Amino acid sequence: MSSTYALVLAGGAGTRFWPASRSRRPKQLLPLVGAAPLLLETVRRVLPLCGGWDRVLVGTGRHLAAPTAQILPDLPPSGLLAEPVPRNTAPCIAWAAARVARVHPDAVVMVLPSDHHIGDVAQFRKALALAVDAAATGVITTIGIKPTHPETGFGYIELAPDKAAPAPSAVAVRRFVEKPDRARAEAFLAGGQHLWNAGMFFFRAGDMMAALRKHQPELAEGVTALAEAAGTDGEAAALDRIFPALPSVSIDFGLMEHLDELAVIPGDFGWSDLGSWQSAWELAPHDRAGNSAPAGTVFVDARDNHVVDLRAPGAKKRVVALVGVEDLVVVETDDALLVVPRERAQDVKHVVEALKARGDGELT
Amino acid sequence: MSSTYALVLAGGAGTRFWPASRSRRPKQLLPLVGAAPLLLETVRRVLPLCGGWDRVLVGTGRHLAAPTAQILPDLPPSGLLAEPVPRNTAPCIAWAAARVARVHPDAVVMVLPSDHHIGDVAQFRKALALAVDAAATGVITTIGIKPTHPETGFGYIELAPDKAAPAPSAVAVRRFVEKPDRARAEAFLAGGQHLWNAGMFFFRAGDMMAALRKHQPELAEGVTALAEAAGTDGEAAALDRIFPALPSVSIDFGLMEHLDELAVIPGDFGWSDLGSWQSAWELAPHDRAGNSAPAGTVFVDARDNHVVDLRAPGAKKRVVALVGVEDLVVVETDDALLVVPRERAQDVKHVVEALKARGDGELT
Repeated sequence: MSSTYALVLAGGAGTRFWPASRSRRPKQLLPLVGAAPLLLETVRRVLPLCGGWDRVLVGTGRHLAAPTAQILPDLPPSGLLAEPVPRNTAPCIAWAAARVARVHPDAVVMVLPSDHHIGDVAQFRKALALAVDAAATGVITTIGIKPTHPETGFGYIELAPDKAAPAPSAVAVRRFVEKPDRARAEAFLAGGQHLWNAGMFFFRAGDMMAALRKHQPELAEGVTALAEAAGTDGEAAALDRIFPALPSVSIDFGLMEHLDELAVIPGDFGWSDLGSWQSAWELAPHDRAGNSAPAGTVFVDARDNHVVDLRAPGAKKRVVALVGVEDLVVVETDDALLVVPRERAQDVKHVVEALKARGDGELT
Repeated sequence: MSSTYALVLAGGAGTRFWPASRSRRPKQLLPLVGAAPLLLETVRRVLPLCGGWDRVLVGTGRHLAAPTAQILPDLPPSGLLAEPVPRNTAPCIAWAAARVARVHPDAVVMVLPSDHHIGDVAQFRKALALAVDAAATGVITTIGIKPTHPETGFGYIELAPDKAAPAPSAVAVRRFVEKPDRARAEAFLAGGQHLWNAGMFFFRAGDMMAALRKHQPELAEGVTALAEAAGTDGEAAALDRIFPALPSVSIDFGLMEHLDELAVIPGDFGWSDLGSWQSAWELAPHDRAGNSAPAGTVFVDARDNHVVDLRAPGAKKRVVALVGVEDLVVVETDDALLVVPRERAQDVKHVVEALKARGDGELT
């Protein structure tokens, strides 16, 4: 374990948690389920596996560097990989791989999204340990989530059980499948040969660099130069010069699909991508009437509602009263109030569009 | 007109407009439809009929004297009849009658509720002028509202068209009818012989005192003593001594029902008692989707909603976004937020009860 690193991808934007999430306060910086921001909960979950903050890397956009660092006061400044411009996931993962490869090419890097929820942390850590062990044998590894319903919003990983296991406890991957339609999603669920792609990847730093040199040589060259500049006076200039020129591509399609061999560890640990207020309500504690709300909220004949108060800590105490409503989401921030039925939660993106269109971009 | 007074009854409490209305900020002090508080709109409507602020009397509870005076800066202090304790409507009306009778027994007093809405002010003033003319002939007069639906929440005035008209343009009243059940209300509507009792009364001050001496002698005696103390050093002491001992009774049942002769002017001027948020929405301006809301509110597939922002003028600008909801009432104050379907608006009283029960009386 001492040679394991974590790269937490924390550059997400997204509008599905408006008004809580904003362009400068995206989902991963918010405490959407527990008391801590999702990013901090993510790092806390994996810290025992990588052995300390000096083995943690956090990739984010430059405009989010300050609030991200604020949430992670124990992260050394060199652990923050602040991208000058967004370039999808492959450049950031490659950058981290190059950084680790320079000092420790045999170390395993765990790549983890920062904005998911894990219900069973013990099972999650077991799956990660298996994935790290698999990656340590030299095969790039992912974790696939056992589907619980025919979800059409995720990509899938198709298993190849006919192939030899690429590593202990792992299954060979046949291919990555893009978001399916409903019929295919139902077939995937029934067939038992498809797992959800949760964006978690495990590899030795040197293995990743070798794969990149083969399949993304331009990217490999760029991040090698970046890694060489790390810790020098020329680092900032190198970043501004090199990073914007890197190919903007996801790690799934830019690299994983091209690999001859890829291992997957099936995982079942209460994973949720926290895709909307609907998920947030599902994961939150409820009273017997199904309401999730701050203490003191008054319910009169109201069921299955989700009330969220994300106003600043110093905001005036305010009572919320719901009368005769059900399945509503009510979110308060200092400058916005949202009311939406849970099943329409995906439509809050239209509010963000409307605010931008009328020149109220500061609210988005 | 120079000898006409207005007594505006502004002592109402009520919880149906929570969280806007509170025990110390009841409905009549709120701008529920237009920009001005209902009480101020009421006085403005009748001011041309009584000729000036020195002919305006406002009855309210002592605990509401300060906010009431604040809303009516032009009202002379002597025009505010602040009741030390609530005693229903008859004592306040009698008190006003006694005050006017001392200086001008032939002057007509118009008694008007302070918390109703009038859609057609010109027609309203015409009806009031007819009622004042009728009262000036010596018959106590009321205005009855032509029913538009079989309302079970109001009392009714039954006409006696077989009797001679007690005054020009007036109809004789047979009796007052308490709130009917649905079947009776429908029969009233179909029969055309019943009007809604809107609590408006017109009489010469001397006539009222005579009627009180006959039917409520204790009350007549008390308010005569009160009126004699008006403007003296002993006024406050007299009020505290006399008022709490007056019989607590409504003018309808304490006096009107006992009169041998009572006239009614049928009125049709867009009257509403503004009984709940439902009425407030009906009377408010709407956009084409039926929404009534402050400028800047964002609607995404949302119809027929009523959004009210009654936070203090200095409160932080805040956008409200409603997505995929209809027929909702959303009310914000500095210390409370209410969400209720319009058709459940009557149930906000249960919120007030819940808050009191848990010791949050300051929110009620």
